Amino acid sequence: MTAKGGAMIFGIDPRTGDTVGVALPESDREAVDAVVAAASEAGRAWRATPAGERAQVLEAVADALTAHAEELWPLAEAETALGEERLRGEVGRAAGQFRLFARVLRDGGYADAIIDHADGVAVPPRPDVRRMKNALPGVVAVFSASNFPFAFSVAGGDTASALAAGCPVVVKAHPGHPNTSEAVAKVVRGALPYPELLGLVHGLGAGADLVRHPGVVAAGFTGSVAGGKAIQALIDEREVPIPFFGELGSVNPVVVLPSALEGESARGALARGFAGSLTMGVGQFCTNPGLMFVPEDRALLEELGETVSGSAGGPMLGERIRDGYLGGLERLGALRASVETAGAGGAGARGLAVLAEGASGDGAFGVAPRVFVVGIDEFAGMLPAVANECFGPSSVVVTYRDVRELVAVLGGLEGALTATIHATDPGEAVEVSEVLGRVAGRLIWNGWPTGVAVCWAMHHGGPWPASTSAGHTSVGATAIDRWLAPTAYQDWPGELLPLELRDGNPLGIPRRVDGVLGLG
Amino acid sequence: MTAKGGAMIFGIDPRTGDTVGVALPESDREAVDAVVAAASEAGRAWRATPAGERAQVLEAVADALTAHAEELWPLAEAETALGEERLRGEVGRAAGQFRLFARVLRDGGYADAIIDHADGVAVPPRPDVRRMKNALPGVVAVFSASNFPFAFSVAGGDTASALAAGCPVVVKAHPGHPNTSEAVAKVVRGALPYPELLGLVHGLGAGADLVRHPGVVAAGFTGSVAGGKAIQALIDEREVPIPFFGELGSVNPVVVLPSALEGESARGALARGFAGSLTMGVGQFCTNPGLMFVPEDRALLEELGETVSGSAGGPMLGERIRDGYLGGLERLGALRASVETAGAGGAGARGLAVLAEGASGDGAFGVAPRVFVVGIDEFAGMLPAVANECFGPSSVVVTYRDVRELVAVLGGLEGALTATIHATDPGEAVEVSEVLGRVAGRLIWNGWPTGVAVCWAMHHGGPWPASTSAGHTSVGATAIDRWLAPTAYQDWPGELLPLELRDGNPLGIPRRVDGVLGLG
Repeated sequence: MTAKGGAMIFGIDPRTGDTVGVALPESDREAVDAVVAAASEAGRAWRATPAGERAQVLEAVADALTAHAEELWPLAEAETALGEERLRGEVGRAAGQFRLFARVLRDGGYADAIIDHADGVAVPPRPDVRRMKNALPGVVAVFSASNFPFAFSVAGGDTASALAAGCPVVVKAHPGHPNTSEAVAKVVRGALPYPELLGLVHGLGAGADLVRHPGVVAAGFTGSVAGGKAIQALIDEREVPIPFFGELGSVNPVVVLPSALEGESARGALARGFAGSLTMGVGQFCTNPGLMFVPEDRALLEELGETVSGSAGGPMLGERIRDGYLGGLERLGALRASVETAGAGGAGARGLAVLAEGASGDGAFGVAPRVFVVGIDEFAGMLPAVANECFGPSSVVVTYRDVRELVAVLGGLEGALTATIHATDPGEAVEVSEVLGRVAGRLIWNGWPTGVAVCWAMHHGGPWPASTSAGHTSVGATAIDRWLAPTAYQDWPGELLPLELRDGNPLGIPRRVDGVLGLG
Repeated sequence: MTAKGGAMIFGIDPRTGDTVGVALPESDREAVDAVVAAASEAGRAWRATPAGERAQVLEAVADALTAHAEELWPLAEAETALGEERLRGEVGRAAGQFRLFARVLRDGGYADAIIDHADGVAVPPRPDVRRMKNALPGVVAVFSASNFPFAFSVAGGDTASALAAGCPVVVKAHPGHPNTSEAVAKVVRGALPYPELLGLVHGLGAGADLVRHPGVVAAGFTGSVAGGKAIQALIDEREVPIPFFGELGSVNPVVVLPSALEGESARGALARGFAGSLTMGVGQFCTNPGLMFVPEDRALLEELGETVSGSAGGPMLGERIRDGYLGGLERLGALRASVETAGAGGAGARGLAVLAEGASGDGAFGVAPRVFVVGIDEFAGMLPAVANECFGPSSVVVTYRDVRELVAVLGGLEGALTATIHATDPGEAVEVSEVLGRVAGRLIWNGWPTGVAVCWAMHHGGPWPASTSAGHTSVGATAIDRWLAPTAYQDWPGELLPLELRDGNPLGIPRRVDGVLGLG
């Protein structure tokens, strides 16, 4: 799969900074060409495989991941230091995603089958038109995420949903866990009817060659805004553009409304929930609460400060990610309001103050959580920089005096994956929820944004820069939609129609016939 | 709506080249800003209007278009010369599109409502998650098409589907029918609860200002590949990218398989069908059959030649479109095979020969239909230039000897809106239909590609360059999907949920609940 003689990729133990596992060669252009060609070839047969058989294969992949969990999680632990419990759980999550897409295929609703019978009375007369969504005709390129070595990587949701759709996949491994990636690819391939349906390449150059390859018809990515823009620039070089589904960066605003402070234990619970969501996994989640709006309430700020100060950081996934976090903290600390504000704080309060600093994490790439605090007027004067994602366990707490000024500021935020409201009175939240509904893809009530349930209704996407395509999700059953495009069949002979569209509904799937949805 | 003192836009009668109607000022940046601001403001109320009420408004628009048909079609006839029957029919088509989207809204399936109840037993425990598709939060920019002054313009499918979704619309009028555009806008506005929901601007600069405007959240376009690329380049300048749904250009291959020549009258019927589809509306359809593959059959070529030679052209819509057609003919006529080919034709057959030239159409911008003929080997050597769209009544007929060589060449074609097969034996078409299924968005059996039925199952899109987003359509019920994006509501209080997602299904719409689709 990879060429000889080029640069090598090593896994690094975040606790020690030492290399772990075996060295893997970066994939040169010939290697990428070979992997894409093999995937394309296998993809033709896969595309023609009925949905029910694809479902069986996805379940076999899930079984294989589960069966190999004991050998997989330690590899990831050595390369990511995310911990046994989390990593075991993540293998289960990855397997669960394959099982969900097997159910999606058997259900058949994903194909969005629609049949309009011929109507000779209509003016003009209407032919028989039948439509369903089919796999995009080619290879899907998947860029692994740093922070989920299983569930957003080689056997992650992008791969599972693309295979479900009927597309072959070539994954660009994340350099943070190359040995894990190889091991997972081997396990998945062992369960596929054509092992070439899952290709794996290593190295930044290989990623570039991949998205420029004419055999690639779509790309999925989870990572930074800068990384996403770089991939889009490569796609813009292509003769034939392709859809790019990137999940790039999100600050995930949390709004604490005044009613949330009612009750003796409210402040403590908010502080514990916030600190837990902030520091879990050393803050390396795309749904980390990077911004929280709270009433001007000294007791709440004290609770938040104490709780975060009592929290510990840990080793981040790699040196670049650690450096990115530290650079982000520095950038935030240096910010000053760029416009004159009428706030009560005076000149001294025109930057961010540190509200809390947690304990530094062990390890070569260890970091501490840090929370800043600022008044809403100053905050507004520091937009948009103050509300850019700083990947890691940091957050900006913004104090406000009344809900009206809050609504005005929320409307100016960049797109986010999530937005959260804490309140006991929904009536208090009407305006805030309306404005957050325009800003974020997922709205959460009295909870915390980390933890993205894999289910039919999940939407994990949002307006730019949260994702490149606000209409699509990278988590949940509808993630398959990224790799599908409709075909209409006009007066098409029954024997050439896909099973989904034939008379008598042989697959028993939901179909809309002459305007009326039926369950099959 | 438009600024004083700038450049003026005139309607032109294609029969005479003279100006018709009143002069309209080009919209400068201030005018565009004002129109977008007014549309945004009205859009907030429209977005919050329940789907059932939006449906009533769409029906009122349909009624208004129908009621004003007698004053509208003559305006378009003066500016386009497309003829009374066609233009009356097109007003009906535009009204029908508004009625279809009213049904789509009442049905509610478009919202793709999904509910997963909380599951405390799951590991990790799952919150209550509900998801539906909502209107994109802002203004949709629509670029009118030249060739459909009603059905793809101010009151066209883009406008109807965007208003249905809950978005305000600002249309950039096509310079080919400015007076028609103003009159249609007035009729539509009269039926809207907030007239500012439909803005109208004139001029190339206004189109550029429109797609760069931060209040615009998506753009729809029907036009040339060059025009589409220019709009994409403007979008790339934006700080926040927006989705661009362009329907750009398509050569619409038609494949005549050997079995289609069986029977005495087969050749004549094919020739009449082809010539009719080619010359209808002076060939000014995006689904024009610009490429036809036929067996090497002298009798068929003679029939095609005679029938097209007996056809007449007509005045094209405007001077630029006429010049584009004549330039395209010149480009095609000058093509030579770029590689050595082993064809039987010898050196003399390495370009395109003229098979037929119809009668020239009257009027200032009159043109004649022209059909070229070439062997498949030479054709392959002239790809891709020989298979680029030449907008107007021209086509290239490609002769092949056996189906295998045909399949290889078809696989190398650019994306198309449609692909058509003529055959009496579906078994003969298995391979060809598989390859055309990867090339085109709509597959037609024993028919002709012009005429796009407005129905639930229609898909009018295809791989690049047929459209910029192969997953979306500009015609049919699912066209609404372009202007929607999902929101997930996690543990969200019932009183803040949209009606579509509340307990008890108050709207009675189709919903997937805990994985099981129900009809409501």
